[in-house]
Amino acid sequence: MRSHYCGQLDQATVATHVTLSGWVHKRRDLGGLIFIDMRDRTGIVQVVFDPDQAELFETANKLRQEFCIQLRGEVRARPESQVNANMATGAVEVIATELTILNRSAPLPIDYNQQVSEEQRLRYRYIDLRRPNMSHNLQFRAKVTSAVRRFLDDAGFLDIETPMLTRATPEGARDYLVPSRTHKGKFFALPQSPQLFKQLLMMSGFDRYYQIVKCFRDEDLRADRQPEFTQIDIETSFMSADQVMEITETMVRGLFQQLLNIDLGDFPRMSWHEAMRRFGSDKPDLRNPLELVDVADLLTEVEFKVFAGPANDPKGRVAALKVPGQAAAITRKMIDEYTQFVGIYGAKGLAWLKVNDLEAGRDGIQSPVLKFIPDDALNGILERTAAKTGDIIFFGADSATVVAEALGALRLKLGEAFGLVADEWRPLWVVDFPMFEEHDGQLHAIHHPFTAPVGVTPEQLKAEPSAALSNAYDMVLNGVEVGGGSVRIHDNAMQQAVFEILGIDAAEAQEKFGFLLDALQYGAPPHAGLAFGLDRLVMLMVGASSIRDVIAFPKTTTAACVLTDAPGVANAEALQELNVAVTLSEQDSNAD
Amino acid sequence: MRSHYCGQLDQATVATHVTLSGWVHKRRDLGGLIFIDMRDRTGIVQVVFDPDQAELFETANKLRQEFCIQLRGEVRARPESQVNANMATGAVEVIATELTILNRSAPLPIDYNQQVSEEQRLRYRYIDLRRPNMSHNLQFRAKVTSAVRRFLDDAGFLDIETPMLTRATPEGARDYLVPSRTHKGKFFALPQSPQLFKQLLMMSGFDRYYQIVKCFRDEDLRADRQPEFTQIDIETSFMSADQVMEITETMVRGLFQQLLNIDLGDFPRMSWHEAMRRFGSDKPDLRNPLELVDVADLLTEVEFKVFAGPANDPKGRVAALKVPGQAAAITRKMIDEYTQFVGIYGAKGLAWLKVNDLEAGRDGIQSPVLKFIPDDALNGILERTAAKTGDIIFFGADSATVVAEALGALRLKLGEAFGLVADEWRPLWVVDFPMFEEHDGQLHAIHHPFTAPVGVTPEQLKAEPSAALSNAYDMVLNGVEVGGGSVRIHDNAMQQAVFEILGIDAAEAQEKFGFLLDALQYGAPPHAGLAFGLDRLVMLMVGASSIRDVIAFPKTTTAACVLTDAPGVANAEALQELNVAVTLSEQDSNAD
Repeated sequence: MRSHYCGQLDQATVATHVTLSGWVHKRRDLGGLIFIDMRDRTGIVQVVFDPDQAELFETANKLRQEFCIQLRGEVRARPESQVNANMATGAVEVIATELTILNRSAPLPIDYNQQVSEEQRLRYRYIDLRRPNMSHNLQFRAKVTSAVRRFLDDAGFLDIETPMLTRATPEGARDYLVPSRTHKGKFFALPQSPQLFKQLLMMSGFDRYYQIVKCFRDEDLRADRQPEFTQIDIETSFMSADQVMEITETMVRGLFQQLLNIDLGDFPRMSWHEAMRRFGSDKPDLRNPLELVDVADLLTEVEFKVFAGPANDPKGRVAALKVPGQAAAITRKMIDEYTQFVGIYGAKGLAWLKVNDLEAGRDGIQSPVLKFIPDDALNGILERTAAKTGDIIFFGADSATVVAEALGALRLKLGEAFGLVADEWRPLWVVDFPMFEEHDGQLHAIHHPFTAPVGVTPEQLKAEPSAALSNAYDMVLNGVEVGGGSVRIHDNAMQQAVFEILGIDAAEAQEKFGFLLDALQYGAPPHAGLAFGLDRLVMLMVGASSIRDVIAFPKTTTAACVLTDAPGVANAEALQELNVAVTLSEQDSNAD
Repeated sequence: MRSHYCGQLDQATVATHVTLSGWVHKRRDLGGLIFIDMRDRTGIVQVVFDPDQAELFETANKLRQEFCIQLRGEVRARPESQVNANMATGAVEVIATELTILNRSAPLPIDYNQQVSEEQRLRYRYIDLRRPNMSHNLQFRAKVTSAVRRFLDDAGFLDIETPMLTRATPEGARDYLVPSRTHKGKFFALPQSPQLFKQLLMMSGFDRYYQIVKCFRDEDLRADRQPEFTQIDIETSFMSADQVMEITETMVRGLFQQLLNIDLGDFPRMSWHEAMRRFGSDKPDLRNPLELVDVADLLTEVEFKVFAGPANDPKGRVAALKVPGQAAAITRKMIDEYTQFVGIYGAKGLAWLKVNDLEAGRDGIQSPVLKFIPDDALNGILERTAAKTGDIIFFGADSATVVAEALGALRLKLGEAFGLVADEWRPLWVVDFPMFEEHDGQLHAIHHPFTAPVGVTPEQLKAEPSAALSNAYDMVLNGVEVGGGSVRIHDNAMQQAVFEILGIDAAEAQEKFGFLLDALQYGAPPHAGLAFGLDRLVMLMVGASSIRDVIAFPKTTTAACVLTDAPGVANAEALQELNVAVTLSEQDSNAD
């Protein structure tokens, strides 16, 4: 029903007779002629109906926006004065010779040429997806998955499906549960990731596995989260961390080259400690030139407790964040706002210092805390931050965690506010994470409990767990963690050691991961892997501001689908068969 | 950690120094040497350890089955007398020079060289998947999905993901339900297929869509069903049924050509009515030469009610099924067994007739019903079935449905039993299905209610719905329905007419499919699609006897995973948060 797509028509097709199928994007009547912009998924082309062809013109006169049509016509070069440089097909138009109205359209409930609320966009998603940019986003996403698959297929990775109906973990706070009809009173869980299954596949000898797969997490949603999201999931045997990083870096570099004609170059590597020290983040946005500068050593002797306390605490930190040349632009009101902002991250205040005149010594410095900072410390700070006249310096002084989070977030906010973020692509590998982090007096795995440590025996790990680094790696792009992975533990003794450190006793380990521990006994190979967040990667690549703009039918931020009205009330009989009941009064339920 | 895979070693690699990583498949000590069969996913190669290298030999002497090892060595041609023609790498062996034991293995809980119960195989799936044939099945499956994706990508189909958390339909007896945490008392359902979403994507203008996607059906399992299964899901706009059949037939033909070097040729087409008439099945296995022959017209006048009743009933049918040359081989005991077998399908008996001597007239015929069949009818039957001496003829006489099901099933059983099924590939399109079937006095859609009828207006359809044929098509291969689809309704009036015929009133239609009906108003394009059952297709291609043998981690026939012990008991707190409760006593629950 078509010889060409609309977007394919150009000078080369002039004088060709074409058959097009698509939609009336716009209609204009001008000088006795009818012009329509005809749209399909490839683009838009102008079609002209001449009143000389009476019957055709009469049909054309019925056309309204979004009528679905098929037409035949001849491609003609537009007169030079009418060439539309803003349109890919702007040099040509189609002179219609036949027209069939395949389906009529009622007036649209949302105008996709104008801003409408996201709620409305999602409710009429099938119309919203006709917007050329939404159509482009999803077509681009298909190109990404296709390119990823070709790369991985060609590199010997096997696409193997893992189950969606999996074991509910006893703690599984974020699991979506699925009652079983056959096994009464029992539940499946939708997978948060195929982690255990892909490790089992390595133990089965599949050597290189991948899957582009839905994962599920039932949690409060933020702007960039969805209850169901898609991972590019990869696992390999007999490969080192370096080799996994190299092959996946090659893949992502290839994607950018092939689909955006952008050369990302070699990805630098940075240790987690350096990232936290310089950027206060484990996923630093390197496009932003601002950096944290540690100054605790300059402030151990000062009498000001706000500084001296953290400066003398092994778990404390005092750091400076200089914004060049903005001393005059940043008002007290703005500083108050920033103070409130860092409070979100636990900072109890935000000390600052303006360098109004570097040459003037103390007199040239303006700061509410100036009186607490002796000359040598002040000079040390100015020197270490390479401060110049007109600069402003903010301070974080608290636990290392709070300082990193608060100044890390402030760094991003200031970078954005003062246009400091360069328009470029800055990829990065973050490596050498700590194995464990402590909270509430207990060590927790920073990644997951199957992550291997670097260069220690199980005994050494148990002796000094806090010092251990994990053999893990995160791929960060412009401040977004697009992927992460690790070398896994393939040795039973090491796995037991990690469980012991995490306070998981033998019975609990057997109950939760028994099949994995069993599998480790039968010649499990060294293995490592990585998972990319496909939604985020595509969002970055197309420049969308939300992952909802790269998902065909996303959920709202309250995890609902306003298009199909899901979730819904379940049939009472079905629930009875499943042996589950809703423990809410009808009132509660309707209140939602 | 490897230069070659084991299976790659052949004459061309002789004298090459190689690094291999894999598993000890078998060990043999012979003539003072240690031989191991070393395995990776590509195959097995023989490795030799010589006692002259004392340290290496000592390490090799520790090797046991399934130890995970890495080794270096030189490829050597085997002496002619030792060439193993049964082994792909049988012309060569590797003389080991270095050996590292990467991981030890405890004795295997299941011996994958021997038959073990499926329960044990599934419990230790990670070991079971090491069997060369299981490894091959999953590697082959990956090749199938890769080839399908390349074909569809190249043909302009877009891989677009549809949601897994969808709307629970009010009747949804087979839905897996997922309680929502955010929307208390409400449920998502896992999709039985992406049908509605892919139709919406056509309305959004994506033109050509595909997805290889998990679907879910909570029902009693049979040998070839799984609660989660995988579809190759396809939808197109502006394509006729013929075009959809052509492109998908090309795809499947290409798969067989590329992956099995088999030419399926052009797929013949057969109407549903012809398939039911000749084979008693809507998915006839054409490798089986037996056919049903209608004889009702010969029996309208007989006094035997068992024949005359159905012969004179417009909804009845009398058909014969001849098995050539097996009159002597088929004993009374076997006939009793067949009678019981057709009883499963509702047949109340199984009349039969042996042609012991065709020349001898009535005297040459042996049959318990012979006395009820007058000469002209008998001669008519013998003539029409082209019976010869030594043949046996079975009869079905009942409602058309029962006759088709009973004799259709008997046809398959007899074909199998007497080795009549040719060793060949017989693809087929079944087309021209009825739109509706009647049971319990109500019309039901044979496919789904979005299937378009052939060549009628909504008014004509409503006037005579039973006569309407649907624009649907099933791809059948060797008696297995591997795919099916249809042209969809894109016209609102037609959709309303179908709902009306199905007894779905406006309110119910709006409640169930409101968003689809809404979408039909805004210039929905003509569209059509198809879905293949990937599991079954791969099962056929690799010659497996169960879809569980082409799925990495399948569920048992009671929808459980014995490897991970799923489904399991859910955490009480989690259930409370979800506002659902199990309505079983603890006893009931444990009884399972």
